[in-house]
Amino acid sequence: MKYDLGTGDLTNWMVCEDNFDTHYLGKCETIMALGNGYLGVRSATEERYSGEVRNTFIAGTFNRFDALEVTELPNCADVYEINFEIDGQLFHLTQGIVKSYQRFLNLKNGELTRKIIWISQSGKEIEFTFKRFISLDNRHLSGQQITMVCKNGNVNVIVKSGINGQMTNSGVQHFSEGEKRLFESDVLQMVQTTTESKIDIIVTATHTFESQGKYIKPESMILMDRRKIYNEFEFELEESKEIVITKYAYFSTSRDLEFEKKALKEIRKHSVQEIIEARQRGYEALIKDSEKAWHDQIWSECPIQIDSENAFDQLSIRFSQYHMRIMTPYHDNRMNIGAKGLTGEGYKGHTFWDTEIFILPYYIYSHPQIARRLLEYRYLCLSGAREKARANGYLGAMFPWESAWVTDGEVTPIWGAADIVTGKSTKIWSGFIEQHITADIAFATWQYFQITNDLDFMEQYGYEIIFETARFWSSRLEYSEEDQLLHINGVIGPDEYKEHIDDNAFTNYMAVFNMRLAIDYYEKLKMDNEHLFQRLNKKIGVDQIYKDLIEDIKRVYLPVPDDFGVIPQDKTYMSKKNIDLSPYKAQKHVGSLFRKYNLKQVNDLQVSKQADVLILMYLLENLFDKTVKLNCWDYYEPRTLHDSSLSLSTHSVLASDLGLYSLAYNLFSQAAEIDLGNNMKTSDHGIHGASLGGVWQCVINGFGGVRMLDGKLRIEPHLPENWQALTFSIYWQGEKLQVAIKKDEFIVTKLFSEKYITIEAFGTHFMFNDRVRVSY
Amino acid sequence: MKYDLGTGDLTNWMVCEDNFDTHYLGKCETIMALGNGYLGVRSATEERYSGEVRNTFIAGTFNRFDALEVTELPNCADVYEINFEIDGQLFHLTQGIVKSYQRFLNLKNGELTRKIIWISQSGKEIEFTFKRFISLDNRHLSGQQITMVCKNGNVNVIVKSGINGQMTNSGVQHFSEGEKRLFESDVLQMVQTTTESKIDIIVTATHTFESQGKYIKPESMILMDRRKIYNEFEFELEESKEIVITKYAYFSTSRDLEFEKKALKEIRKHSVQEIIEARQRGYEALIKDSEKAWHDQIWSECPIQIDSENAFDQLSIRFSQYHMRIMTPYHDNRMNIGAKGLTGEGYKGHTFWDTEIFILPYYIYSHPQIARRLLEYRYLCLSGAREKARANGYLGAMFPWESAWVTDGEVTPIWGAADIVTGKSTKIWSGFIEQHITADIAFATWQYFQITNDLDFMEQYGYEIIFETARFWSSRLEYSEEDQLLHINGVIGPDEYKEHIDDNAFTNYMAVFNMRLAIDYYEKLKMDNEHLFQRLNKKIGVDQIYKDLIEDIKRVYLPVPDDFGVIPQDKTYMSKKNIDLSPYKAQKHVGSLFRKYNLKQVNDLQVSKQADVLILMYLLENLFDKTVKLNCWDYYEPRTLHDSSLSLSTHSVLASDLGLYSLAYNLFSQAAEIDLGNNMKTSDHGIHGASLGGVWQCVINGFGGVRMLDGKLRIEPHLPENWQALTFSIYWQGEKLQVAIKKDEFIVTKLFSEKYITIEAFGTHFMFNDRVRVSY
Repeated sequence: MKYDLGTGDLTNWMVCEDNFDTHYLGKCETIMALGNGYLGVRSATEERYSGEVRNTFIAGTFNRFDALEVTELPNCADVYEINFEIDGQLFHLTQGIVKSYQRFLNLKNGELTRKIIWISQSGKEIEFTFKRFISLDNRHLSGQQITMVCKNGNVNVIVKSGINGQMTNSGVQHFSEGEKRLFESDVLQMVQTTTESKIDIIVTATHTFESQGKYIKPESMILMDRRKIYNEFEFELEESKEIVITKYAYFSTSRDLEFEKKALKEIRKHSVQEIIEARQRGYEALIKDSEKAWHDQIWSECPIQIDSENAFDQLSIRFSQYHMRIMTPYHDNRMNIGAKGLTGEGYKGHTFWDTEIFILPYYIYSHPQIARRLLEYRYLCLSGAREKARANGYLGAMFPWESAWVTDGEVTPIWGAADIVTGKSTKIWSGFIEQHITADIAFATWQYFQITNDLDFMEQYGYEIIFETARFWSSRLEYSEEDQLLHINGVIGPDEYKEHIDDNAFTNYMAVFNMRLAIDYYEKLKMDNEHLFQRLNKKIGVDQIYKDLIEDIKRVYLPVPDDFGVIPQDKTYMSKKNIDLSPYKAQKHVGSLFRKYNLKQVNDLQVSKQADVLILMYLLENLFDKTVKLNCWDYYEPRTLHDSSLSLSTHSVLASDLGLYSLAYNLFSQAAEIDLGNNMKTSDHGIHGASLGGVWQCVINGFGGVRMLDGKLRIEPHLPENWQALTFSIYWQGEKLQVAIKKDEFIVTKLFSEKYITIEAFGTHFMFNDRVRVSY
Repeated sequence: MKYDLGTGDLTNWMVCEDNFDTHYLGKCETIMALGNGYLGVRSATEERYSGEVRNTFIAGTFNRFDALEVTELPNCADVYEINFEIDGQLFHLTQGIVKSYQRFLNLKNGELTRKIIWISQSGKEIEFTFKRFISLDNRHLSGQQITMVCKNGNVNVIVKSGINGQMTNSGVQHFSEGEKRLFESDVLQMVQTTTESKIDIIVTATHTFESQGKYIKPESMILMDRRKIYNEFEFELEESKEIVITKYAYFSTSRDLEFEKKALKEIRKHSVQEIIEARQRGYEALIKDSEKAWHDQIWSECPIQIDSENAFDQLSIRFSQYHMRIMTPYHDNRMNIGAKGLTGEGYKGHTFWDTEIFILPYYIYSHPQIARRLLEYRYLCLSGAREKARANGYLGAMFPWESAWVTDGEVTPIWGAADIVTGKSTKIWSGFIEQHITADIAFATWQYFQITNDLDFMEQYGYEIIFETARFWSSRLEYSEEDQLLHINGVIGPDEYKEHIDDNAFTNYMAVFNMRLAIDYYEKLKMDNEHLFQRLNKKIGVDQIYKDLIEDIKRVYLPVPDDFGVIPQDKTYMSKKNIDLSPYKAQKHVGSLFRKYNLKQVNDLQVSKQADVLILMYLLENLFDKTVKLNCWDYYEPRTLHDSSLSLSTHSVLASDLGLYSLAYNLFSQAAEIDLGNNMKTSDHGIHGASLGGVWQCVINGFGGVRMLDGKLRIEPHLPENWQALTFSIYWQGEKLQVAIKKDEFIVTKLFSEKYITIEAFGTHFMFNDRVRVSY
């Protein structure tokens, strides 16, 4: 597998596979996935292979199989499978001869292409070109096109293509079978209804056949099987004459905002109309519409240009932007981003802190209106968070570690991998005690507000989130007679290799940050916005929250640097056993530690899954001085296995901050390679969403040096050795700036409005309303 | 694909595949399936292929996915998948080079063997021998053994093997996930519970490794995934040194009679103990136990020897006996035989008239105690049959067209294949109006009684079945003012290409037979068994039934031969349109008619799916004279497409009866080839159970000429041209007879007891208590 980087206009826009190996299907299924944030489809091939994972997800259609499982995003009916029988032989790359093979995803327009010259067992040489896209212009729509030419003679071709609802989530079926129907003689439709949440999913598909520029009608039959409806087409492929098969698909659900109040019958009818219209426009026109949407929404809106000796750097940032777009439900604030986007069953489509801490910065700086929607989702989840707090004996809002539909509350599964010692499943404690998520959401709300200045958001949603989360922390604190301070005991920090720990530095600092924020906003609101203040006081009793916070904040225990200048990760970490971690640091696959130890044993070792204290120093960077940061780096990095894909990018940005420039670049490259690199098994369960956000942070916040500090924009770039230039756009408090960085200077250009803004760089403040050049 | 017929002791015992083609996986998965009537497993290979159907069924564990579907036999967790990584490359027959390949099922002991020499992509030549069996001695147990030798160097081997509960019925998941556990460091166990019927299924597995006759312990790891628990073993396979991997599996359920009253915990513990004991005995000892059971239960109990020029004939009758054994739940009378046995998802594990009309004769003559159990099942289903009658406005017992668990009642699905005209699913009417099943069961009860003389069965179950079914018919009859007769209108006969028809000859004659039987038994009981008579009168009111029957029987309309001496199949058949059926008679796949016509259109044509009138003439043979039979043959055979696998064998036996001997042999061969022949797609959905019973009938009732007529045994053989001899055993009214047939004479030997019996042959009666020779 190589990554061809494209040529001409498409230089650094193409992700390319030039050798097909059935052992590594998962890689391209994931990294070449298509979608638009509503619909997400793994790029399984038309013909089927053992070991493939064929997923079609529609954002927000969560369903729970039974009381023993948690809700998850169901794998709906597949439309991309198409089987070809050539003179009675199935087209399959493991049979016959593959004379040439190339598959590539064009990030610019989201079109996936596969070109194959295949020689059948009877010696017929056939050129196949498979193309498909999911529209960014009409989120319900997808197009798929196959061009076939036989080079040496005529062949009989049977094509089986339709809608297959036998798909499951690793064996779990989330749908009741609904009606299968053929409409207007050539439009197939299948209805599926989720078993518990009762969401109707309507999948509609139709085909056209063209030969020499004209539509043709091959012999066709309609067939139904269990949860399946498909056509069987039969035609003669004459030597050297091209046949073009186009399949259109339209997905709609009863959960879609535009269909919410419509009867199923109406949605079904609408879907048939839509697909007939799409068919009339044709594949080329539809992908043009989609390409334009990609251009308008992403590539012209927030382009990032990297002039690097390593072309992979440019590709990887585009790859990140592409995938962040296809994983994000721009269309509906009742939905958020899954840890694996819409590209795999991993993490069940659930939302974690990954959104706020790793991905949201991209949206705040690049698409603030989308960042707002993602935070609105958390606001809509407040009832579940309040419920979770109550169920745990606390007050305020305790956000779920894993989140699905807005009213679901906590959805973290309870049982995980095998415990190698006891032989039982390991209990997953995150849903109970990985509580920093609540402070992370408050942090993100504040960060959004600071960078966007979106007061309307704060008044409608933001303040309430911050007061309710602070109230949770206040109720969560535990008083100790011993030191007469308040502690947060029995939690899991970002380093999930330590469970049931007390005074996790990350959690305590973030909780105090959250509480402090509420205190500040209380005082500000009381002064500036009497009306809102009264409304909130009536609704959630901010007076009482403030009273409690003022009392508590003085007495919360915050870990300070020890004798070696290192902040202890938690109360007991420093006293745990050290082992030789070199075999695990050099591991080929993450999690190798668990081949030798169970979680209980790992709990007693000085080994971390990911940067725990270090991420704290990145988020609340001006609370810690550089020496402490360096001490912590030196202490924790050797003890960190980066078994979380969230770890590398944090380290990279922090390395940039600390002046460890070549290390920063190296870590950035490693982060970029998690999905896009040559390790063929890493992406099997889906894309690493947070890591893609992390890659963006490496570039913009790390090398680009962009930072919001105390409400001010600071830009202190440091390009990697092999980069000549870096250019990107960001939004800052309603303004849009283009930042063009070179080795020794950078230029910031305001793109609209003549308002003055201030940036800080290397200790100097620059105020300007058009452009500023900073040498460094 | 060829059928090697074995050599030496195994001549005509082996079903063999000598070329592996992934397009035709279904064929050997089905025909080489293993089982014992409790457990049934399709023989999917250890390594997985796209298109495989991997099924493990346990009889009677029916579950209903949701209210929109009918209950079906769920596909439980698979234990037969084992994946091998050889120096990092997956073992897969589509990759690397297959130097030699052979797979064979030994019918004698039910062991499946696969021998492969495979050259990996890196040039390592490895000899694999895969063996497996499901024990007939301990129905819960299965063994699987893989021997590996590398011929040219050492290789690193990673083996992944365990229990995989991600299996579904074509996408439908019937289980909630239960606990996965490792016991005693090397016993894997997974619990699954059916979602609606709440049956626990406990799957337990363990592995051993041997090298040069000694147990070894390779490096091993326990892994869990969703609905999966497995081991990963790693070892060095040294040049020319054999490694033998053995996997034992034990299946148990909370529905098993022996575990019914045990707590889940106890069953689980018991299963672990059992598998440890099995492991101690070892593969060789266990298969010896199983082989002995095959010998005792089948091959020595009711051997059938065919001395034919075509060795395939001998193989095919053994194949029938093998499959009838593995599809029949000998162990539990709450279960019956599924139309596809336990070899596929087709027909959902449901029981049809196939049992009574096609398979039961084999059991009545060969294993009368099993025949009794199969009829006891129908008795246990009486409540559902009464319920169905009530729900339809009738009295008595109206047996379900499709039957599953004894209390389920009617379970025929309502929607089937696509209607090519309307584009909708076709409604399946059989569950509503294919009513002859009720008379078929009464007929079989009578047949069983006549042949076995099992009065105890009749007194406990049989009479009640016959009275209740007769009462149904009496209530079902419809009076016509026009002819002042009683009719059965709006039914489907055995020929399912005719729906909603009136006075189907088969149905009317069988109903009258059923009513007449009840009248006779009433009179007999009243005279001979006052006590039972009173009990039944009290329980079901036989006096009233009799009164109604006596009234009705005189006036039921029975179709008589028309002007051409042909009995009309139904009221309107003869007036329907004739079309040229030659393209469909010459069809490669069944059902080709529906590529051109929908069922509604077929309803208006003189075309039949299967022998409708002809099967009536076979079952009630002495009601019709030979001329009428010949007329009907000549009329209906050309109009019959044999689209049901039940059709050919009926025709064959009738052809024998009518003296059409070469045709009879030809039809027998076709019937035998339905599964065992070279058409590679016919067995995809599972074995054709009724057809296998039909093959037995062709041999014993057709060529062997064995018939029960008016309670007497008649033997009038006629061997096919290329047969020299046919020898078999049958039970007759508690006696066991060996019948040895040659071209011009046959000898019947009584195998125990000195009681005299009488047989009739070619118009002469022979009474004997040791042996009789009849020349013909």
